Amino acid sequence: MPAAARSRRGARAPVRVVALGGGHGLAASLAALRHVTEDVTAVVTVADDGGSSGRLREEFGVLPPGDLRMALAALCHDSQWGHLWRDVLQHRFSGDGPLAGHSVGNLLIVALWQLLDDPVDGLRVIGDLLGAQGRVLPMSDRPLTIEADVRDPANGVTGTVRGQKEVATTAGRVGWVRLDPTDPPANPEAVRAVLEADWVVMGPGSWFTSVCPHLLVPELADALQRTTARRCVTLNLDPGTNETAGYRPEQLLEVLGAYAPGLTLDAVVADPAAVDDVDALAHAAGQLGANLVMRQVSWSDGTARHHPLRLAAAYADVFAGVTADLRR
Amino acid sequence: MPAAARSRRGARAPVRVVALGGGHGLAASLAALRHVTEDVTAVVTVADDGGSSGRLREEFGVLPPGDLRMALAALCHDSQWGHLWRDVLQHRFSGDGPLAGHSVGNLLIVALWQLLDDPVDGLRVIGDLLGAQGRVLPMSDRPLTIEADVRDPANGVTGTVRGQKEVATTAGRVGWVRLDPTDPPANPEAVRAVLEADWVVMGPGSWFTSVCPHLLVPELADALQRTTARRCVTLNLDPGTNETAGYRPEQLLEVLGAYAPGLTLDAVVADPAAVDDVDALAHAAGQLGANLVMRQVSWSDGTARHHPLRLAAAYADVFAGVTADLRR
Repeated sequence: MPAAARSRRGARAPVRVVALGGGHGLAASLAALRHVTEDVTAVVTVADDGGSSGRLREEFGVLPPGDLRMALAALCHDSQWGHLWRDVLQHRFSGDGPLAGHSVGNLLIVALWQLLDDPVDGLRVIGDLLGAQGRVLPMSDRPLTIEADVRDPANGVTGTVRGQKEVATTAGRVGWVRLDPTDPPANPEAVRAVLEADWVVMGPGSWFTSVCPHLLVPELADALQRTTARRCVTLNLDPGTNETAGYRPEQLLEVLGAYAPGLTLDAVVADPAAVDDVDALAHAAGQLGANLVMRQVSWSDGTARHHPLRLAAAYADVFAGVTADLRR
Repeated sequence: MPAAARSRRGARAPVRVVALGGGHGLAASLAALRHVTEDVTAVVTVADDGGSSGRLREEFGVLPPGDLRMALAALCHDSQWGHLWRDVLQHRFSGDGPLAGHSVGNLLIVALWQLLDDPVDGLRVIGDLLGAQGRVLPMSDRPLTIEADVRDPANGVTGTVRGQKEVATTAGRVGWVRLDPTDPPANPEAVRAVLEADWVVMGPGSWFTSVCPHLLVPELADALQRTTARRCVTLNLDPGTNETAGYRPEQLLEVLGAYAPGLTLDAVVADPAAVDDVDALAHAAGQLGANLVMRQVSWSDGTARHHPLRLAAAYADVFAGVTADLRR
């Protein structure tokens, strides 16, 4: 079994990390965290309604599997077996037939859910297949819908946009986001993981549709307040072309704070290239109780993607309490 | 890896067996053979054009994966891991949406073919996943179409029926079967397996659409003539309600002989309950050079399915040269 082949990096107990998020942002965070600890739990949004996930959700009434699949793929064992099955899970059928656009991993996850009748069991089996270095949980066992108040910048009129895909790609300015149902049950294992963690990491990712939704699940928001874990927020490298267009980094922290009144943070990771006003961001971080940890975490080619090893080094600093601004 | 966990049954080299066929018949043969040897190669028909396989063939131009999947499932490792992944591969989506009726294993096999661009490599990966006790090869790397001359019993008019599904379910009497293209290339590993085998097993299964097609692939027919392997034919328990309705067991042997002029056999396995005229069958077997091996190989409930352990015991007798009619 791939799991049996895992190398232990040292005798010390690993830092227990819970990463909250969804989509490519969470995958980037996990691709970094796997270098820093062996004990990672991803807690993933389940409100996607677009693409392959949206079609499966509609056809079978299941949780949208796509973000869960991407998180599992990011944790695959670093071996020929792990890479092969990661590639299989990430493979998408092409063409214009009935299967076109479906990801194989999504189909496999749905099949396991139908067979085992338990979302966590199904994801565990995929994790075993990949020899995943960590586990992946849904934030809720119930498929959710995201709804947002959106202001049209042209005429200032505010309306409601429904659906994660629609919110993430709206041309308007997103004001406030809600879940439907408004108080979904949290996945119990996700709550337990947050309570037992050493560190909880939020972001990077689509702010309104992947990062903030966890704070709208009451039991998860409560666990985030109650946990003795320290909390780290990783900011995006890119202001985003849609849902967060026009938001400055410090405003994204304020948004997060608004969804979780009273929540304090310990660290905020940002890349100098993505921050115009470091003092304003440091102030916003300080308002939430956090140190601002400025590190180059992007690729050298200037694309707005987190480099797994640079982000890993930043997390290692954060977890070790090394938060000095090395840039100054 | 599941493969590493395989137990060796003894120090002697296993009997190298190649099983030719398709569908449920081949799966029944493999489910028996796995008890008798560790060295099984299934060589599978690739002319299916119905159901999930037919849809995938049409959407992606690939080999029909269904019979290959069933053969792999029949060889799965006898462990929790092997059984779980067998069940996943055999799982079919239900409902009436775009995925309804598709088998998960078919989708996975097609994805691997698209990723690895080699039918044998893709099947090997599925075999590794299942910890399969043996390997599965397509008889040709080219999707084939079956065509049959069929006589309408009502008016005696003969016409042509095209497509495996149509031939297998025709109400008419099947006379002669052809492949399109008429001389497809054999899969080279399948040819090598036949040449290097100790025993080649044909049947049970749909006679015209699963058992005989191998004899219409010139390189495979040639290998079957040239091999030093001995040859065993296992007859069906049921005359079949469609394509072989009205054919007596001895007539099925004659059909086989007609498709492979000059081919000799060593053993014919039949169940007493499925044979009315033992002498006629023994005579037909003798015409092909074979001993008739009469054994109870069915379940005790009277259903026309081969019992894996009874069929395994019959194969063990055949491979050991114990062909006496124990019934008399």
